[in-house]
Amino acid sequence: MDKSSTKRIGITIGDPAGIGPELALRVASDWPATAQASLVLIGDGNLLDRVGTSLGIQCPPGIALDKLSGHDHGVATLSVGSLAADHVIPGQWTAATGEASYQWVRFAVEAAMRNQIDAIVTGPIQKEAWHDAGVEFPGHTELLAEMTGTKEYQMMLTSPEISCVLVTIHVPLADVAAALTIENVYQAIRLGSAALSRSLGRPARVTVCGLNPHAGENGLFSHQEEERIIQPAIDRARAEGLNVIGPLSPDTAFVPTHRRKTDVYVCMYHDQGLIPLKALAFDDAVNVTLGLPIVRTSVDHGTAMDIAWRGVACDKSLRAAIRMAIDLS
Amino acid sequence: MDKSSTKRIGITIGDPAGIGPELALRVASDWPATAQASLVLIGDGNLLDRVGTSLGIQCPPGIALDKLSGHDHGVATLSVGSLAADHVIPGQWTAATGEASYQWVRFAVEAAMRNQIDAIVTGPIQKEAWHDAGVEFPGHTELLAEMTGTKEYQMMLTSPEISCVLVTIHVPLADVAAALTIENVYQAIRLGSAALSRSLGRPARVTVCGLNPHAGENGLFSHQEEERIIQPAIDRARAEGLNVIGPLSPDTAFVPTHRRKTDVYVCMYHDQGLIPLKALAFDDAVNVTLGLPIVRTSVDHGTAMDIAWRGVACDKSLRAAIRMAIDLS
Repeated sequence: MDKSSTKRIGITIGDPAGIGPELALRVASDWPATAQASLVLIGDGNLLDRVGTSLGIQCPPGIALDKLSGHDHGVATLSVGSLAADHVIPGQWTAATGEASYQWVRFAVEAAMRNQIDAIVTGPIQKEAWHDAGVEFPGHTELLAEMTGTKEYQMMLTSPEISCVLVTIHVPLADVAAALTIENVYQAIRLGSAALSRSLGRPARVTVCGLNPHAGENGLFSHQEEERIIQPAIDRARAEGLNVIGPLSPDTAFVPTHRRKTDVYVCMYHDQGLIPLKALAFDDAVNVTLGLPIVRTSVDHGTAMDIAWRGVACDKSLRAAIRMAIDLS
Repeated sequence: MDKSSTKRIGITIGDPAGIGPELALRVASDWPATAQASLVLIGDGNLLDRVGTSLGIQCPPGIALDKLSGHDHGVATLSVGSLAADHVIPGQWTAATGEASYQWVRFAVEAAMRNQIDAIVTGPIQKEAWHDAGVEFPGHTELLAEMTGTKEYQMMLTSPEISCVLVTIHVPLADVAAALTIENVYQAIRLGSAALSRSLGRPARVTVCGLNPHAGENGLFSHQEEERIIQPAIDRARAEGLNVIGPLSPDTAFVPTHRRKTDVYVCMYHDQGLIPLKALAFDDAVNVTLGLPIVRTSVDHGTAMDIAWRGVACDKSLRAAIRMAIDLS
């Protein structure tokens, strides 16, 4: 990491046809010159100019690649790749917008691995656009793990109200049970406990959700996933001294009295964690990838193609993701 | 149904070793004699006496079966079955407590079918105790459907904040996808829309959740359940004039802005609906079985064996369930 006290945060602007570019411009436009972090918008200067012009927001000045390591205050735009910015239609993702947003993330990861930036904050991509561009990764997290050679990683969503580590992410619901192992449940407990213990400055209290309704009600509504997989993972974490309870019935795990006893939830699937998080956290949740050798946070929302380039999208999640990236780097 | 303006509400007291008996006693103890409904606690007089004595709550007077149809005000206890009340240990369910709670529900359904009571409110059972007693039904809802010859029924959880109809209920998560059909998703939309339209006095706005993360992201994280099953069910409901949107990404369906546009959610599985409902609704959610020829509501919590007979359990859900039963009958 950079040894200076100023952090350099790389923001990938996400799918060019979505709301990512305007959110990045908005945050950059009021970024204080005195801030303890500098921002680099990683994307395409022509595209950001187009979006900025249509919304009346100034685009940050361009910066050359060889000047990146010296960018220690304020905001800048770094153009990467060969997007035909004039061809982008707001709200209409294509293979070309997918390819561009993919290359921006690749560049950001390489820059972080070279210590040219201290953290990555990723704007929202359109996953089908990546797919149409021939990208084999279903999302950011899997790409980052591959590029950094990380085997044990987990996605954590964090908000002022609750934090959730997801054992499985972009998996069809029917395949979730088969994707659970003692090892990946244990890793989620370990990484979630470590992350929250670090940020709280005390041992984190971990609640592990069951997979099935009523956590299987002792095997009545399950294929014994709680007994075969989740309980052994909890036992292993407890044997190492971690403060873990569960497997809890998923529907009672998130009631207010239990939330007050929990610093981080370990959730077996995407919506088990994201439904309560988004129901409770409104706009200020942040996505953090745990276990990587680099710091990466992300907005927790999508590209919102239906309102792209209109200047009405909410930038609270991006601002929270930048704050979290600064804290972690 | 009874033609008098007073409603007679039968309350099954639930598993005798759980918190159901004390909640029923508590609600009965302050039931106003002037109320527009009379209550009948369906259970065992000796057991209720034991619980009431230990907690200092008066047990309502016993009533004979042949006097049930004349019980038009106040509260009474009706003993059914042959529970050995002295053998019940608080917090310890057994096959005997399961058998007793099962017989109380059977009796209540028969009484409702004979119009001896206007509605049933069920206290919490221990599902494993039913199972140990050799009961083939996983829960109340399936038993009620069988006894009333109902093919199309759905479980709805309703609260001041949100209402959710569940397409599948007590199904292992791995088996949920295979249990969805166009027909059962459609029936959930239809019954949910009808119930909320009736209670609101205007056409209800229905939101249907997808099954998979991001509602499958156009097939990327799914086995096309959204396209093959959920969308055709929505199309059918819309063709009949119902106000339906979806399939929505489950994690965004419950954010505050979308909750304000939704009167009732159709959820594909138990925790998709119950996680947000309980996270938001605290103690006052009510379970309603839609599609039955009789009115049945229920508490939305379990037996809470760990605090049974201690007088600390919260009775808000039972009170809300009774109010809802009176409204619907």
